[in-house]
Amino acid sequence: MERLQEAIAQGAIDVASTNLSNGVAECQWVVVCTPIQQIAAHVVSAAKAAPQAMITDVGSTKESLVRQLASFPNLRFVGSHPMAGSEKSGCQHGSASLFDRRLVFVTPSTATPKTWTEEVRKFWEAVGAQSVAIDPGQHDLCVAQVSHLPHLIASALATSTDPHWIPMAASGWSSTTRVAAGDPALWTQILMENRTPVLQATRKFATILQAWVDALESGDGKKIEQLLEAGKQSRDALGNRHPSS
Amino acid sequence: MERLQEAIAQGAIDVASTNLSNGVAECQWVVVCTPIQQIAAHVVSAAKAAPQAMITDVGSTKESLVRQLASFPNLRFVGSHPMAGSEKSGCQHGSASLFDRRLVFVTPSTATPKTWTEEVRKFWEAVGAQSVAIDPGQHDLCVAQVSHLPHLIASALATSTDPHWIPMAASGWSSTTRVAAGDPALWTQILMENRTPVLQATRKFATILQAWVDALESGDGKKIEQLLEAGKQSRDALGNRHPSS
Repeated sequence: MERLQEAIAQGAIDVASTNLSNGVAECQWVVVCTPIQQIAAHVVSAAKAAPQAMITDVGSTKESLVRQLASFPNLRFVGSHPMAGSEKSGCQHGSASLFDRRLVFVTPSTATPKTWTEEVRKFWEAVGAQSVAIDPGQHDLCVAQVSHLPHLIASALATSTDPHWIPMAASGWSSTTRVAAGDPALWTQILMENRTPVLQATRKFATILQAWVDALESGDGKKIEQLLEAGKQSRDALGNRHPSS
Repeated sequence: MERLQEAIAQGAIDVASTNLSNGVAECQWVVVCTPIQQIAAHVVSAAKAAPQAMITDVGSTKESLVRQLASFPNLRFVGSHPMAGSEKSGCQHGSASLFDRRLVFVTPSTATPKTWTEEVRKFWEAVGAQSVAIDPGQHDLCVAQVSHLPHLIASALATSTDPHWIPMAASGWSSTTRVAAGDPALWTQILMENRTPVLQATRKFATILQAWVDALESGDGKKIEQLLEAGKQSRDALGNRHPSS
């Protein structure tokens, strides 16, 4: 309760309860923000206590969750995954502009009524986000590449640096390793949950890394420049959508 | 001359010349900012035309340069490497605060008079930087880890992402790949010049990556959490020295 009272004191929330059924009973909307392994059970409990509510979640993998909930056909649930937040946690790091122009994936199953998907998309757009509806499995492949692999790589890169050189690091190292400061327990859950797509993405990365090792070993400047050109072309495709990061 | 005239028009520089000897003849300080393979020759030419000047450079590898210049014992030269700048180039991206609190390596050889090293350190500190004197070979090992490997990794990561997922990328991918937008020709020179230390750093990274592949393959959550803890510990050691990156 201590962290909930802190959130009330800060004005981040109006009312707190640690009893899920009581907490959601009168809600029109329920957003489940619990660790990924617990989301399915919490969605089912919330739906029982608040059958009127539209339920979504913010879990960062979606196929397994949507599959788990498929046997509860009357759930008013559509999964979500907001691509927002940072390596910091706790309500003191909350921000009213957190979702501004951020992408939120909304992941209907084939059985989800289209009107529900639209309602959930409007919910996220009402807090400033841009939403996209995507198949849960495609979502997991996508985030393995654009979120989970970068986390893994940032972590491995930070670890590979000799501790006595870290004080000499500049903005390149700082950017490239930034997300490695994230919560290890949370990220273990995410990576375990999305293990197969992440492994696939990691293997693809390892192939490119091997091309780098080969080019460096043979001193092949032309090949190095080709590798750098490919990386630049890919990075430039993002444009300036995240200038502060 | 077009780019030089643009720099004059912007007030970035007062006088321009494409004749090195004429340009430096009356200078007290010469800072050679040319591609790395040409620095040694430009330092020697500048020293001939301006024997009164203290000469330094901003090349990002140092051992080979210092070795090349060792046969010119009367050069008033001490190498430098400012850890500042970005993936952007051109005088329109210049900034008066570019060196503020940035680290500048100053790399005397064993033959360099200490007073010269101190003069060059004071020069950089006068424009806002923090300086550190370091052996040229140690410098190259350090930057292989904190600058060159992150560049290579950022590039490989950007390349590994399927182009159709890039529009879905959020701040994690954006930060982790940021430096991959840098100039391929420039970075080919840097990586070729510092090839041996970079290869060594890349191999160390590849070993950690293999530990990740093994942990993912076997679904070893405990090992994944250990890997993430190690990465977080390393990243946290930097603190908030580069909050905007």
